[in-house]
Amino acid sequence: MKGGALELGAASKGLAPKNAVNRGIAILDFILRIVAIVGTLGSAIAMGTTNQTLPFFTQFIRFRAKYTDLPSFTFFVVASSVATVYLVLSLAVSIFNVVKSDAQGSRVLLIIFDTIMLGLLTAGASAAASIVYLAHKGNTKTNWFAICQQFNSFCERISGSLIGSFAGVLVLVVLVLLSAVALSRR
Amino acid sequence: MKGGALELGAASKGLAPKNAVNRGIAILDFILRIVAIVGTLGSAIAMGTTNQTLPFFTQFIRFRAKYTDLPSFTFFVVASSVATVYLVLSLAVSIFNVVKSDAQGSRVLLIIFDTIMLGLLTAGASAAASIVYLAHKGNTKTNWFAICQQFNSFCERISGSLIGSFAGVLVLVVLVLLSAVALSRR
Repeated sequence: MKGGALELGAASKGLAPKNAVNRGIAILDFILRIVAIVGTLGSAIAMGTTNQTLPFFTQFIRFRAKYTDLPSFTFFVVASSVATVYLVLSLAVSIFNVVKSDAQGSRVLLIIFDTIMLGLLTAGASAAASIVYLAHKGNTKTNWFAICQQFNSFCERISGSLIGSFAGVLVLVVLVLLSAVALSRR
Repeated sequence: MKGGALELGAASKGLAPKNAVNRGIAILDFILRIVAIVGTLGSAIAMGTTNQTLPFFTQFIRFRAKYTDLPSFTFFVVASSVATVYLVLSLAVSIFNVVKSDAQGSRVLLIIFDTIMLGLLTAGASAAASIVYLAHKGNTKTNWFAICQQFNSFCERISGSLIGSFAGVLVLVVLVLLSAVALSRR
C-alpha cells in the first residue's frame, strides 16, 4: 500500500514539471503569436495604404506611386494579410495548448501550418525587399534607375513596412522550434 | 513467469509497428534530402555559370550579362549553395535516424535547422524570382525596361534555375512535417 503510494507520488512528480514546462512553452507561443500579428498586420497596412502623388505633372501624365504598380508589392500585401488572418485563427489552437498542456495532435497541426505560413511570408517579404533595394540603388547594368529620388516618402514607407514582415518571419521560426521542443518533451 | 512473458510480448508488439513506421519515415526523409540536394545544387550551378555576351559592342561598352550584375542573383547563388552544403551534412543525421528509429534529440535538431534553411532558401528563391519577373516583363510605371529581348539565353537560364530552388523549398516543408509526425508518434 505504502509502496504503491510512493510509486504514484514519484510518477506524478515526474509528470508535473514536464507539464509545467509545456504550459510555459504554450504561453510563450501565445504571446509570440500576438507579436507576429502586430508585425504582419502593421506591414500589410503600411504597404497597402502607401500612396504618393508628385506635386508636378505634365499634360499627359500625373506621377503617382502605389503598391499595385509593382506585382511584388501586391504579393507582399496578400502574403502579409493571409499570414495575419492565419495567426489570428491559430490563437484558438494556442489557447487550447495552454489549457491541455499534454496535447500532441494540435501541436503537430500548428507545426505544419506554421511552416507553410513561414514559407509564404518569407517569399512575400524577400520578393518585396529585392524590389525595394532596386528602387533605392537602381542597377546600371540593366539601365534600371533608382526611383527613390522622386518618390522619397513612398520609398521610406515601403522600406519600413518590410521590418514588420521580417519580424513575423523570425517569430514563426521560433514558434516552429518551440512546438518541436514541446513535442519532444512529452 | 508466464504473465511476465505475456506482458513483455504485448509491450514489444506495441512498440514494433511504431518503430517500423518511424523507420519508414526516416528512410523517406533520407530520399527526400537527396532530391532536395539535386534541386538546390542544380539551381546554384545553373545560375552561377550563366554568362552571356552579346555579339555587338560599342566603342566603350561590351554588353555582358552575369549573375553578379544583380545583387538578388548573388544572394540566390549563396543561399542555394549554403542549403546544398547543409543538406549534404544533414544526410548523416538522417542515416542515424534510420538506424536508431526512436531517437528524438536528433529529430528536434533536424526540425530546427530545416526550418532555418527553409527560410533562407525561400528568401533567396523569391528575391531572384521577383527580379526574373522584372527582367521578363519590365515595369512601365518605374521606367524599368525588360532586358530579356536582348539577353534571351541569359533569361532562359535564370528562369530555369528557379525551379530547382522552389522544388527544394517544397521538399524542406515536407521534411519538417515528417519530423513533426515522427516526433509525435513516439
